[in-house]
Amino acid sequence: VGIGDDAAVLHSAGTLVWTIDEQVDGIHFRRDLLSMRDVGFRSFMAATSDVAAMGATPWCALCSVVLPTDFADADLEAFARGQRDAAREVQAGIVGGNLSRGPALSVSTTVLGRGEHPVARAGARSGDRIWLAGSVGLAAAGLRALTQGLSDARLDPAVAAWRTPRALIQAGLALESRATAAIDVSDGLARDLGHVARASGLAAVLDEAALVEDGLLVLAAEALATGALDLALYGGEDYALVATSPVPLPGFRCIGAMRTGAGLFLRSKDSERLLSTRGFDHFAER
Amino acid sequence: VGIGDDAAVLHSAGTLVWTIDEQVDGIHFRRDLLSMRDVGFRSFMAATSDVAAMGATPWCALCSVVLPTDFADADLEAFARGQRDAAREVQAGIVGGNLSRGPALSVSTTVLGRGEHPVARAGARSGDRIWLAGSVGLAAAGLRALTQGLSDARLDPAVAAWRTPRALIQAGLALESRATAAIDVSDGLARDLGHVARASGLAAVLDEAALVEDGLLVLAAEALATGALDLALYGGEDYALVATSPVPLPGFRCIGAMRTGAGLFLRSKDSERLLSTRGFDHFAER
Repeated sequence: VGIGDDAAVLHSAGTLVWTIDEQVDGIHFRRDLLSMRDVGFRSFMAATSDVAAMGATPWCALCSVVLPTDFADADLEAFARGQRDAAREVQAGIVGGNLSRGPALSVSTTVLGRGEHPVARAGARSGDRIWLAGSVGLAAAGLRALTQGLSDARLDPAVAAWRTPRALIQAGLALESRATAAIDVSDGLARDLGHVARASGLAAVLDEAALVEDGLLVLAAEALATGALDLALYGGEDYALVATSPVPLPGFRCIGAMRTGAGLFLRSKDSERLLSTRGFDHFAER
Repeated sequence: VGIGDDAAVLHSAGTLVWTIDEQVDGIHFRRDLLSMRDVGFRSFMAATSDVAAMGATPWCALCSVVLPTDFADADLEAFARGQRDAAREVQAGIVGGNLSRGPALSVSTTVLGRGEHPVARAGARSGDRIWLAGSVGLAAAGLRALTQGLSDARLDPAVAAWRTPRALIQAGLALESRATAAIDVSDGLARDLGHVARASGLAAVLDEAALVEDGLLVLAAEALATGALDLALYGGEDYALVATSPVPLPGFRCIGAMRTGAGLFLRSKDSERLLSTRGFDHFAER
């Protein structure tokens, strides 16, 4: 039935996964750092990423938008275009929504996905390898470049990663029959992998060398004169996927292993240290 | 799977209706006029009402809440209790959600409902009667009493109607096999029935006498020294159901009829006049 009626009408059979995500101006993005088109694109991808992290395929979505009074019709059009572009990329339909006034721009996106065997956070087993699809740290580097007003070609991929993240739907499809646990990295690898470890009653051990082998991240870290490892562990909003599995996952690379115990550890050549699982603060200076 | 994972997991077969609704502090409610428990209750019922208006049964819900920094843990508990109370009343499950920070309290509620033959807005036929379940105008009278600081026993039912509206699930179940069109009255009867008339390519004729026969509304209007008819036509947020059908609908009363043409009309004893279909302004003085 679609937009304009009180509710959308869907015909479904089977298992659905269902998520809602919210992006608020000043908290998750800043309008001075992002076009309206990108606000729409990014908020849609952020919500869809939760579906990918369950190993499911996005199916359809509703969006509720709170508009401040300074919001022009052209802004709304650009925003809607960004949502549509994102929906098209992940082959999902936007079947309805809601518009209201409010003090600040905020976007709630709810997505239904289909997948017969959704992957949760709590299933990791001791001995499983830890697998990563996509980059971690790049979006945080891009946000830092934007807030510091830096212009450097080495930072361009990082800025794009923050502005227009991609939900890793194709990679997510590899999870369904193989992964024991999975999550998307929205709050930083340390924090999100920490959720998997805690939910599974295990310790996670990350391999330092594997985390800093991402060439784009290394270049961005150089341009920022900061450490790539810190960005990889604590940078959020890349919407990478991290999973545990005893077997390799197509499209993922190995970054560590699960073992008995608790906590998050970093293994270098000869040593191992306990890591903090603190999260990503969007606009906090580090 | 429920709260704590990236997404809820549902097993479904058949037709679903799906809606999202947003309630923003200062626009749809004011924290000085409403307890936190009632903010939770009311936002849940407002969203569920859209499912009732399709003739469907609420099944499950996700809630995304933006919390301002002055929001205490006790506030969040009271809010969640209100949501739970509302969900229990309509026998729906809250299966997940999202919390974020922001400049003002706002609540997005998305509800999935089940119903084999959802009723849309566009199916009314010439000659159908117009049917109403629940009160219209009472919630607006209650809001006016609160904003004007009036205390009068005649206004108590009106204040309760605004603070703790009920989605009319049972009445909605009568729609499925009988109604040609239906909508819930959130923006005022004139405006919402106007949507049905326009979508169906018809005119709607309301019966003045039927609109002012609600004893509670008449008493509330007396206490406010205002007209009951104006409240009934332009007061919003009662979440009454209005439907069109050639046959009586259990739990509904007849308030008019559809005919060929366009527009919204009010019929009194000997005359008929065209009505404005303007909507309800939550906090505007009239």
